[in-house]
Amino acid sequence: MYKKVDEADIAFLRELLGERYVSRDEVDLVTNANDAYVSGFSLPEVVVWPGSTDEVSAILRYATTNRIPVTVRAAGTSLVGSCVPQHGGIVMNVMRMNKVISVNPEDMWVDVQPSIVYEDLNRHLSVYGLFFPPDPGSAVSCTIGGMVASNASGIMALKYGTTRDYVLSLTVVLPSGEVMRFGCNALKTSVGYDLVRLVVGSEGTLGVITEATLRVKRLPRVRRLLVAHFRDYENALDSITDIRSEGLEPAAVEFLDRRTVALISEHLGLQVKDDASMIVIEFHGFSDQGVQIEVREAVKIIEKNGCDDHVVTSSESERMAIWRARKGAYPAILRECRSPVTGDVIVPLSKLKETIRYIYDLSERYSVEVAVFGHLGDGNIHANWLSDRSKKDHWERANSANKELVKYAITVGGAASAEHGVGVEKKEFMELQHGPALSYMRALKRLFDPANILNPGIMIDV
Amino acid sequence: MYKKVDEADIAFLRELLGERYVSRDEVDLVTNANDAYVSGFSLPEVVVWPGSTDEVSAILRYATTNRIPVTVRAAGTSLVGSCVPQHGGIVMNVMRMNKVISVNPEDMWVDVQPSIVYEDLNRHLSVYGLFFPPDPGSAVSCTIGGMVASNASGIMALKYGTTRDYVLSLTVVLPSGEVMRFGCNALKTSVGYDLVRLVVGSEGTLGVITEATLRVKRLPRVRRLLVAHFRDYENALDSITDIRSEGLEPAAVEFLDRRTVALISEHLGLQVKDDASMIVIEFHGFSDQGVQIEVREAVKIIEKNGCDDHVVTSSESERMAIWRARKGAYPAILRECRSPVTGDVIVPLSKLKETIRYIYDLSERYSVEVAVFGHLGDGNIHANWLSDRSKKDHWERANSANKELVKYAITVGGAASAEHGVGVEKKEFMELQHGPALSYMRALKRLFDPANILNPGIMIDV
Repeated sequence: MYKKVDEADIAFLRELLGERYVSRDEVDLVTNANDAYVSGFSLPEVVVWPGSTDEVSAILRYATTNRIPVTVRAAGTSLVGSCVPQHGGIVMNVMRMNKVISVNPEDMWVDVQPSIVYEDLNRHLSVYGLFFPPDPGSAVSCTIGGMVASNASGIMALKYGTTRDYVLSLTVVLPSGEVMRFGCNALKTSVGYDLVRLVVGSEGTLGVITEATLRVKRLPRVRRLLVAHFRDYENALDSITDIRSEGLEPAAVEFLDRRTVALISEHLGLQVKDDASMIVIEFHGFSDQGVQIEVREAVKIIEKNGCDDHVVTSSESERMAIWRARKGAYPAILRECRSPVTGDVIVPLSKLKETIRYIYDLSERYSVEVAVFGHLGDGNIHANWLSDRSKKDHWERANSANKELVKYAITVGGAASAEHGVGVEKKEFMELQHGPALSYMRALKRLFDPANILNPGIMIDV
Repeated sequence: MYKKVDEADIAFLRELLGERYVSRDEVDLVTNANDAYVSGFSLPEVVVWPGSTDEVSAILRYATTNRIPVTVRAAGTSLVGSCVPQHGGIVMNVMRMNKVISVNPEDMWVDVQPSIVYEDLNRHLSVYGLFFPPDPGSAVSCTIGGMVASNASGIMALKYGTTRDYVLSLTVVLPSGEVMRFGCNALKTSVGYDLVRLVVGSEGTLGVITEATLRVKRLPRVRRLLVAHFRDYENALDSITDIRSEGLEPAAVEFLDRRTVALISEHLGLQVKDDASMIVIEFHGFSDQGVQIEVREAVKIIEKNGCDDHVVTSSESERMAIWRARKGAYPAILRECRSPVTGDVIVPLSKLKETIRYIYDLSERYSVEVAVFGHLGDGNIHANWLSDRSKKDHWERANSANKELVKYAITVGGAASAEHGVGVEKKEFMELQHGPALSYMRALKRLFDPANILNPGIMIDV
C-alpha cells in the first residue's frame, strides 16, 4: 500500500534539504522510532529535518505523490505514541524550527515556530510580563507545535483553559503541500468554519503546523500557594469539590495520592510529607489583599474537611520547590518502575470520588500498584499503573486495569483523554467515545489527506 | 436546481408534524422571511415548527432526498441575514424546542433545547448561583441555538470568552437526517477532531442543533461598575489600553461614543450625560476588598487620561440601569433611523485608535453619520451608519462606508465579524478573510451537506 523509501527518494530529500538534514544512520532511526509512550517503537526508513515551511511543503507534496508515509515529530514527549512512525517511511523532525518570530505585547500575542519549547517560550515572554498559561507536566521539554497538535494543558488549565483557547492562527502545510493560514489574530471572530480548532488536537493527522500565533496573558501580580495534607484521601476530594462550589476560582487544584507523594519523597529526595495525600492549590490575583481573602476561605474549607496540616506561602522559592515536587510525580514513577502504564482520563466533578475509589478497586482486583495524581479541579485524573513490560503477565494486567478505567470514564460522561491525546494507545476507544460521529472524523481525515500519508495509524484509521 | 415545494411535500410535512405545525399562510411566510438584517427578505414556500430531534431528522432526510432547501431559524435576531431563506423552500422554525432539559450544578453544566432564550436560561440558572456569561446585546430575545450557530458573545466576553468556549456537547441533525452527538461533558478533552467547534459558528450550514450542553460559571460574589465620561474620545481609548496593560482583568470594558450616548438619551429618555464619550467597566471578584482595589487602580488610570467625571457603583439597581442604557444603544439607533447599516468588525488592540479615527473619516468622506460603540476591551467595534434604505443614494453610501471598514479591519489583522457572523451580508469578504483556506471550508460544507439543502446561500457558497 505504501511505497518503501528508495534511493531516488533519498536523492530528492538530499537535494531539497542538504546532506546533513537527511539521515539513515541507525542512531537517528532509533531515536526517532518512538516517543514517551513506553509501548511504542517503530523504525522509520529515513529521518529529515526541514528548516522552513517551504521545505515541509515540498516534502509533503513529494510524499503524497509517491505514497510515502510521513510522521511528524519534535521533542517526542507524547505519552500515547502520537509520534511513532507506525508504517515506517519518513520521520519529519521539525526541531530546527524553534524560533520566536515576534512578540506583540500590545495586542497580547506571540508568533512562534512550532518547535520552541514551552518553558523557553515563557522565559522569553516573561520579559514582557506575559505568559502562555497551560503549563503541562512536560513543560521543560515539550514544544508548542506538539501542544497545539494534542490540545495540551496541565496545572493551570483550571483557571486559564487549554491550548485550544489560545491559538489565534496557524500556518499549516497540508499533505498536498498546500500552505494554508488558518484563523486571524483578532481576539474573537465569527467568520466561517473554525479551521484553527479543527487542527488543534488533530495530532498531526491533517497537516503540519509550521507557525503558530498564540494569545498570551499577563503574568499575575500576586500568587499564593496552599499545600494541605490529608490522611484520608476522600477528605481531600471533598475539599476540592467544596472549594469549587464556594465560588473560589483558584488557578490550580492538584491532587497527589499517598503513593505518589511517597515516590516523590523516595526518588527525588524532596522534603514532602510522605504518609498522606496532598493537595496543592494556587491562587492568582491583582492584589495581595484579594488573594489572601481567597486563601483564607480555602483554608476554612480544608480545615472543615479534616485536613491534617497545611502551609500557605507566597515565597517564590517555596512555590517553585512545591511545583518542582508536583512535576516530579511522573519522573519519580518512572524511576520506581521502568514502564508504567499512564492514564489520562477525565470525569465529571460529581464522579471524582467514585472514580478514584474505582481505581483503587482495580488496583486490588488486578494486583497492580497504582499511583494517582492529577488536575482534580477539572476532573482530570492520571492513574499510573506501576508495571514493567519485561514481566509479561503483570504488564498485561496493568494495561487491562487502565483500559477498564478508560471505559469507566467514558461511561460516566467523561473522556478517554483530557490532555495526552489518542495516539496509538487510545485509538481503540474512539468508537466508544464518539459513536457514529467517528465516521465524520474519518471523512475529515480523508478530505485533508486523501492518500493517508500523514501520521498514518495515529489517532484514527480510515 | 432546487425542487419547489408541492402538495405532496405539504402532505408529508402535515403527516409528520400535524396540521398546526405546517403553514403556508401569508402572515407566517412573511414573518419567517427575514431576521434583524435590514436588507434581507426572501419568502419561504412553507414554514414548519418541529418539536423534536426525530422530527427535525425526518424533515432533513426528506429535504435532502427531494432537493428542497431548508433554512433554520428560531428568534431571528441575526443582524447579517443568517436566517433568511435565500432560495425559498422550507423554513424550519425550531422555537418550540425551548426547554431546559437538566441543570447539573455539581458538574457545572446545563443541558438545553436550542430555542431557550439567553436571559430565560440565565434566570433559570440564577437559582443555582450559576450563569452562562457571554451576554449578547440581544440577550432578552436571542436563543442558545443561534448563539452556538454564530459563536455569539457580547459584553462579558472579555473576561469569560465567547459561546465557543462553553459548548461541551451538541446533538446535531445532519442534512442526511443522521442524528449525531458531538463532544462529551468533561471539562477538557483531547480525543479526536473537535466536531463541536466545527459546528459552533457554522451558522446552521452543517447541521441543525437540537440539544446543547453548556458549561456554566458561578455568579460572581461581587460586582462593581465604573462609568466614566471623556470629552475627548481618544482619552477614553487610551484609558482602555492602559487598563489592559496594567494587568487589570475587568469583566467588561464598553465604549459608547458621543453620538451613541446622545441617541440613548434622546430616544430612551435615559439619564445619561450626553455630550461626551462614555466607557463602562465592570469588575467581578470573590471579595469586595479585592474588587475595590482593582476599581481604585482603574480610576487612577482614567483620571491620568483626562476623564471628565466618573461614578463607581456596586448598587444592583444602578448597575442594571447603566447596563440597560448600554444595551439600549442599538434600539436607540433603530429609532433614529429606520435601517442603520450595522458594523461588527474587530481589530487588534494596537489598532483601536486608528480604526475609530478611520471610521470618523469614512463618515465625513461618505457624508453618512455614524454612531460607534462596542466591546473595545477586546477590539470589537460596532460602527452604526445612520441611514435609511428608502433614500437610495444615502443607503448606498452607508453600505460603501461599512464595506471599506470591513476591508480595513481585515487588512490590519482583524476580522469581518467578531460576533454577528457572516450570514448574507459578509459573504463577499470570506475570500479576503481566509484566502486559499476558503476552498477547504467549501469542501467541509460539501462533506456535511452534499445536496446543499441546508441554509443554502448563507455564510458560504459551494
